Amino acid sequence: MSVTTRRIYLNTKGSGDLLNITDRLQTALDEAGIKEGLLNVFVIGSTAALTTFEFEDGLIADMGELYERIAPVGRHYAHDDTWGDANGFSHVRAALQGPGLALPVENGRLLLGTWQQVVLAEFDNQARKRELILTFIGG
Amino acid sequence: MSVTTRRIYLNTKGSGDLLNITDRLQTALDEAGIKEGLLNVFVIGSTAALTTFEFEDGLIADMGELYERIAPVGRHYAHDDTWGDANGFSHVRAALQGPGLALPVENGRLLLGTWQQVVLAEFDNQARKRELILTFIGG
Amino acid sequence: MSVTTRRIYLNTKGSGDLLNITDRLQTALDEAGIKEGLLNVFVIGSTAALTTFEFEDGLIADMGELYERIAPVGRHYAHDDTWGDANGFSHVRAALQGPGLALPVENGRLLLGTWQQVVLAEFDNQARKRELILTFIGG
Repeated sequence: MSVTTRRIYLNTKGSGDLLNITDRLQTALDEAGIKEGLLNVFVIGSTAALTTFEFEDGLIADMGELYERIAPVGRHYAHDDTWGDANGFSHVRAALQGPGLALPVENGRLLLGTWQQVVLAEFDNQARKRELILTFIGG
Repeated sequence: MSVTTRRIYLNTKGSGDLLNITDRLQTALDEAGIKEGLLNVFVIGSTAALTTFEFEDGLIADMGELYERIAPVGRHYAHDDTWGDANGFSHVRAALQGPGLALPVENGRLLLGTWQQVVLAEFDNQARKRELILTFIGG
Repeated sequence: MSVTTRRIYLNTKGSGDLLNITDRLQTALDEAGIKEGLLNVFVIGSTAALTTFEFEDGLIADMGELYERIAPVGRHYAHDDTWGDANGFSHVRAALQGPGLALPVENGRLLLGTWQQVVLAEFDNQARKRELILTFIGG
């Protein structure tokens, strides 16, 4: 058994950008050479999050609507008064969705459903360069 | 230290079915023989999720109402237009709740509160056979 | 590689209390001596949860409003009929937010954003002593 830490950097387009990162994670797993164990993915920052869903246009739209219902862009957020950067909605969406996922690995493959992709949710209102920490634990 | 992967299969009744899987996880832990470490649980598929709550009839009803407020069954979801399977609500609920949990283990026991059970949430609108991946890491 | 389990106990003030536990976690990591791997944090109990956000007064208020919109205190919860303890809202908030986080560690430091703190959310309607299980996996 061993532990290995790797990073992935991704450019996002800003608010509402949902990126399918499954292939990037599998490639990193191939490079790390772990056959069985866990790949923990964690996004640095407080206006992005990680989850899994079926990555198709309909659901991409539905997820955007879900986040808008939970934390509307047009609401007043006290955070916006603190910094004047008008992205309070981004922060609360990210905090509720959560910054990390631990994914099972077997035979060198991420174990996911056929219609289950790993998605980085960019909630910030501007394009960002995102840093993901990948921690591989296993043998 | 070692890593071990096991699977649990569960039959659900479809939308709104919440299953207490705590005892199943403890039994699997007993079989894996890990005394200290983590049990990561991950549900394959994009219309189910995992969390913990006090598994009693009142809260089971309350959780159902929470999910219905967040993503009502009767809303229009773009996903439904993609496949015509009318379970868009299931997907967005699952994505928000999340597919996995990492549970601490000590002295061969899952460390949970007395009133804290591990629950599989079936959000799909039909009965499903669910596959859970259990990854045991520890010694 | 090794696995080590530690506990942190925290006193909260009851409903809505959000505690920045980042420094406590880093201190525990220093004591555990893990240089690379994961720190899994799990809160015992069913009326508290863990997440990350920028810990400043504005967002603390915004997160409180988010939870109130999702599961209002004044709603009727079936759970309240079960026990008569009027904290149904606490349970559903905790179940949606989730009880755990797996944090990456490198060079003996938690890898977090500058504006990303680890937060314990106390949802119960009374002051509580909280037990957090810290599981360190790495080398």
